[in-house]
Amino acid sequence: MIDLRSDTVTTPSEEMRAAAADAEVGDDVYGEDPTVNELERRAAEAVGKEAAMYVPTGTMGNQIAARVHTDRGQEALVEAESHVYKYELGGFAQHSNLQVRTYDGGANGAPTPEQVRDGFVAEDLHRAGTGLLCLENTHNVKGGVPVPADDVAAAAEAAHDLGVPVHVDGARLFNAVTALDADAAELLAPVDSVMFCLSKGLGAPVGSMLAGSEEFVEEARRVRKLMGGGMRQAGIIAAPGLEALANRDRLHVDHERAKELAAGLDDLDGLSVAEPDTNIVLVDTTETGETAAALLERCEQEGVRGSEFGEHTIRFCTHLDVDDEDVAAAIDAVERAL
Amino acid sequence: MIDLRSDTVTTPSEEMRAAAADAEVGDDVYGEDPTVNELERRAAEAVGKEAAMYVPTGTMGNQIAARVHTDRGQEALVEAESHVYKYELGGFAQHSNLQVRTYDGGANGAPTPEQVRDGFVAEDLHRAGTGLLCLENTHNVKGGVPVPADDVAAAAEAAHDLGVPVHVDGARLFNAVTALDADAAELLAPVDSVMFCLSKGLGAPVGSMLAGSEEFVEEARRVRKLMGGGMRQAGIIAAPGLEALANRDRLHVDHERAKELAAGLDDLDGLSVAEPDTNIVLVDTTETGETAAALLERCEQEGVRGSEFGEHTIRFCTHLDVDDEDVAAAIDAVERAL
Amino acid sequence: MIDLRSDTVTTPSEEMRAAAADAEVGDDVYGEDPTVNELERRAAEAVGKEAAMYVPTGTMGNQIAARVHTDRGQEALVEAESHVYKYELGGFAQHSNLQVRTYDGGANGAPTPEQVRDGFVAEDLHRAGTGLLCLENTHNVKGGVPVPADDVAAAAEAAHDLGVPVHVDGARLFNAVTALDADAAELLAPVDSVMFCLSKGLGAPVGSMLAGSEEFVEEARRVRKLMGGGMRQAGIIAAPGLEALANRDRLHVDHERAKELAAGLDDLDGLSVAEPDTNIVLVDTTETGETAAALLERCEQEGVRGSEFGEHTIRFCTHLDVDDEDVAAAIDAVERAL
Amino acid sequence: MIDLRSDTVTTPSEEMRAAAADAEVGDDVYGEDPTVNELERRAAEAVGKEAAMYVPTGTMGNQIAARVHTDRGQEALVEAESHVYKYELGGFAQHSNLQVRTYDGGANGAPTPEQVRDGFVAEDLHRAGTGLLCLENTHNVKGGVPVPADDVAAAAEAAHDLGVPVHVDGARLFNAVTALDADAAELLAPVDSVMFCLSKGLGAPVGSMLAGSEEFVEEARRVRKLMGGGMRQAGIIAAPGLEALANRDRLHVDHERAKELAAGLDDLDGLSVAEPDTNIVLVDTTETGETAAALLERCEQEGVRGSEFGEHTIRFCTHLDVDDEDVAAAIDAVERAL
Repeated sequence: MIDLRSDTVTTPSEEMRAAAADAEVGDDVYGEDPTVNELERRAAEAVGKEAAMYVPTGTMGNQIAARVHTDRGQEALVEAESHVYKYELGGFAQHSNLQVRTYDGGANGAPTPEQVRDGFVAEDLHRAGTGLLCLENTHNVKGGVPVPADDVAAAAEAAHDLGVPVHVDGARLFNAVTALDADAAELLAPVDSVMFCLSKGLGAPVGSMLAGSEEFVEEARRVRKLMGGGMRQAGIIAAPGLEALANRDRLHVDHERAKELAAGLDDLDGLSVAEPDTNIVLVDTTETGETAAALLERCEQEGVRGSEFGEHTIRFCTHLDVDDEDVAAAIDAVERAL
Repeated sequence: MIDLRSDTVTTPSEEMRAAAADAEVGDDVYGEDPTVNELERRAAEAVGKEAAMYVPTGTMGNQIAARVHTDRGQEALVEAESHVYKYELGGFAQHSNLQVRTYDGGANGAPTPEQVRDGFVAEDLHRAGTGLLCLENTHNVKGGVPVPADDVAAAAEAAHDLGVPVHVDGARLFNAVTALDADAAELLAPVDSVMFCLSKGLGAPVGSMLAGSEEFVEEARRVRKLMGGGMRQAGIIAAPGLEALANRDRLHVDHERAKELAAGLDDLDGLSVAEPDTNIVLVDTTETGETAAALLERCEQEGVRGSEFGEHTIRFCTHLDVDDEDVAAAIDAVERAL
Repeated sequence: MIDLRSDTVTTPSEEMRAAAADAEVGDDVYGEDPTVNELERRAAEAVGKEAAMYVPTGTMGNQIAARVHTDRGQEALVEAESHVYKYELGGFAQHSNLQVRTYDGGANGAPTPEQVRDGFVAEDLHRAGTGLLCLENTHNVKGGVPVPADDVAAAAEAAHDLGVPVHVDGARLFNAVTALDADAAELLAPVDSVMFCLSKGLGAPVGSMLAGSEEFVEEARRVRKLMGGGMRQAGIIAAPGLEALANRDRLHVDHERAKELAAGLDDLDGLSVAEPDTNIVLVDTTETGETAAALLERCEQEGVRGSEFGEHTIRFCTHLDVDDEDVAAAIDAVERAL
Repeated sequence: MIDLRSDTVTTPSEEMRAAAADAEVGDDVYGEDPTVNELERRAAEAVGKEAAMYVPTGTMGNQIAARVHTDRGQEALVEAESHVYKYELGGFAQHSNLQVRTYDGGANGAPTPEQVRDGFVAEDLHRAGTGLLCLENTHNVKGGVPVPADDVAAAAEAAHDLGVPVHVDGARLFNAVTALDADAAELLAPVDSVMFCLSKGLGAPVGSMLAGSEEFVEEARRVRKLMGGGMRQAGIIAAPGLEALANRDRLHVDHERAKELAAGLDDLDGLSVAEPDTNIVLVDTTETGETAAALLERCEQEGVRGSEFGEHTIRFCTHLDVDDEDVAAAIDAVERAL
């Protein structure tokens, strides 16, 4: 079975497993796990921020960021199809009592400066002021599209002019960095905090990083404890995370395979597939007259799995555990399924 | 000064003042205030619901309704320009941990059944399910437009098919009833709860009613206590509220005056004013090249007040304390201000 | 029926009713109600604070105070039998996400400075720091006991030394002031905020005041709006509130009657009643072998009502609507009931 | 350095490291990680519950349990020195809007049935009803004392009679099971849910288990996602957790060493040390005239670390990484420090 449902399904490499086995560890609640400390240092460096903190999941990283940046009762400006809004169980309202306001990020998921200003609400007697702007890079639901540095900078400048901090949900940050051929630190210099996943494209079994200023991360450590994210000998999973950082350099391979997959599927009758920027391929089944769910069921019988992403939209992800042959086999399997 | 900022500015009539002075009262926390009890009975009857409860404000009524209808962490589907979303300090997130999702209610503020279905989120591992649909009738920001009975029924049917209860923010409910020439009970039969204000068009100094099933109102009484809305000899303000119910029959007069005002203002150079359905007149100042704020300042110098409702939008409200002469004088004052 | 269940049952005087009828009013959400403004000015003066705000209930006043003083996730130090802890539906946890920690206020409900220091929790990685100390004066459950100025000052000094603000739930503040023969401003000078009720002993039909610094009250206005406490022509109920302030001078009469009632009841076989300091009389029924509930039921048949305050404790309150004859009649009625 | 600060400091064994390296994994968010599934099956079995769920920390397990068992605004009855009350950042108020009410668990931390009934609050208009009883077994702050099966059963029966579910914070559950020579399933049969840590005495690097009925665990999975605890290839850390279960059988060794350590320290001049039941040794420094902090500092210079547990109380924990020689060396080091 070729599993293209998500890049979260990757299993750890031999190097990662060895790293877990050999990790030097300590009690991270006391700040004494050298592997976690090293990972946090390297992660901060990787995104050009003062400090970083290890969290068990990207959701926890995003939720902690929202809580640290805001006061209760404020608003958060989020993209209408973003993960924080759609797939985190309304966590902004639950953990931080934030009202969300959405912007339509268009093709690449970024708000224009004007959208930031339009969505901004000044605090007054009747209105909770805006306390946070969230970006998602790459933007998952829009097809793994990267938000270019200029768009990040323009949105952040508009937000900062209004006194609003900016958080980036970078679950697939280095896919964006790779696709944009950008320097991560430069891309993120205009924003206040960023979460990126060590799992997904980087292939670690568990874990994400939340980075920002030292003051931000210090406060984030308390919120992590509150959320139940203060682990002990976390070096065991941080060690594969350190290995995972090396995978930043090979994401272009996943992107090329995604392009190959997209081209192959687009050639099939009835499927319409745009060229992907990163590792996410969105397939439109409308012309086949079939729903995504129906086609996916037959695909699975033919040996390839994807995710239903809309009534007529399938998502396929390339990742570490998919090679060129898998891509070719996946195209064949979908063809048989049609 | 002719005060057209809002219908909230009405001062109580002699009858209301006398009613306050003569009210038979008791301790309403014990359920022993006969005037409150009578008001709750009459209010329930007026909207065709089993029971009703007196609350100090419409905001409290809406927030209690949201809390009673939902479980923590659910979503509420609200109109993008609605009061509960824009002007209640993010209360859904603060009091009930609800994530809001907006629909664009178009001309009259009502969602189509398709919008209800599109906005609905089924509960799963990643998503907080939808727990409430809110309508606003009349819709304030859209210009006091009434939502017709068919639209209410269609939206409510779509929601109920999905297991979602429906609350109506009827701050100006009887303006809608009047404009639609509807029977209130029929209009509201498809929904689960409704809040309507005794202040605003009905002219009471203080207070709103929250109505629904007996079970709903029973639970609402506890939430009212939690919110700090359990008053003592509330008959003193409930008595003017009873008088205010009689004003349902004269709202058409406010509507006629609003039409007159709108027509007069639309004739002025540079102002564009649509014919209002109820008592809210929205004035577009774009062609004058002036902002609403700038024009309002000069209007005030000429003896008429309105509200800034957008960069180029002024809102004028007719109400109990505005007569035909005031309307004529207001038009003259605006003309001088231009 | 002589109703001694609570001092909340008082019905407004003719002067209050006339004041309601004649009140000059405006829209208080716009800050334009002259009667409310006057009441807020006079209330601030009465307790020696910079500013005050009108709220529909004491519960709302206490809850707003807790929210304004604290950050989410802090602790509040409250008396183990206090109203904010026992009778406000866990509002500190619900409105402000505060964890409560209790102190045993002993005879008069006040914490010793040592108790404040012991109850104080410094913020660290595992612990939410203490953000508020609450006092209750008079303390209801302990029998309307006043907390002397020295105890208030000592507790407040201990709290302030730890950086913790102090709020006084003064639902029956002027009963304390009267019993202590204190100057209210001096009594409250050491604390940061105070709520006192215009209903209860002062006899207003509705309403309470929350007072503190100008900055505190300004922020409190936003929270009041959030709580649904931003009323419109509130002058109608603020006017009786202004009249109620005059009743501060007659509370000693209620206290004397309470002493008379206590003495009379203590003389009855099987009842044990301590001399009250203010207007609350706690009756211990243990020796009668009867529960409070059973005795209360027969009392009611004999024409007097009280409140069950424990398995063997009845509370009787004297108030504006109880005169000397009522006291005598109440004693007789209880005697018959025994 | 002999580290007796906590049993959380244990580093994983070679077997655990090998298990991590060899773990069969999958995406646990999809329920596809066979190692996690096996661990959940074995953990449920170990405590005699229908189902169990892996969580990154004990704090998260406790907080999820509180949320699943209760409705917002209820009360939780917790021990006055319990971990959920003292060391989880007020999480009950923050995650679940619960007001806590404490009981004094006396010598072993368990409430008597009478204390459960006294602490119970019935839901009414003014009071949030009690929604949860928490026990802690072993009780950390009281010195690792185990709560006997009879006490657990009696407390649970009292709670259930009142309709209140019972959760056990079993961070050191198997220390209790060992000390009581109990059957874990029998010990826990009377309660509704239990959290136990795989780290601490069992020695896993990361992770805890939350167990209860299938329905409870199903709902807990959603809350875990909300809390940010839904990890991916968690088998990597679940595998050491499976190894850790085997350490249940050796906890008696830690207990014996704790007894040895306690006896040795109690013999030293000025220290007073009660015989421990499990692996936690509380040392009273009062007679030395020194604070715990001062003595601990010198202990560290002499090569042994402990935790400050009160002004004159030091906590030493025995655990997997402490052998007989370490115990003897620790006693010598403390002697030198004195």
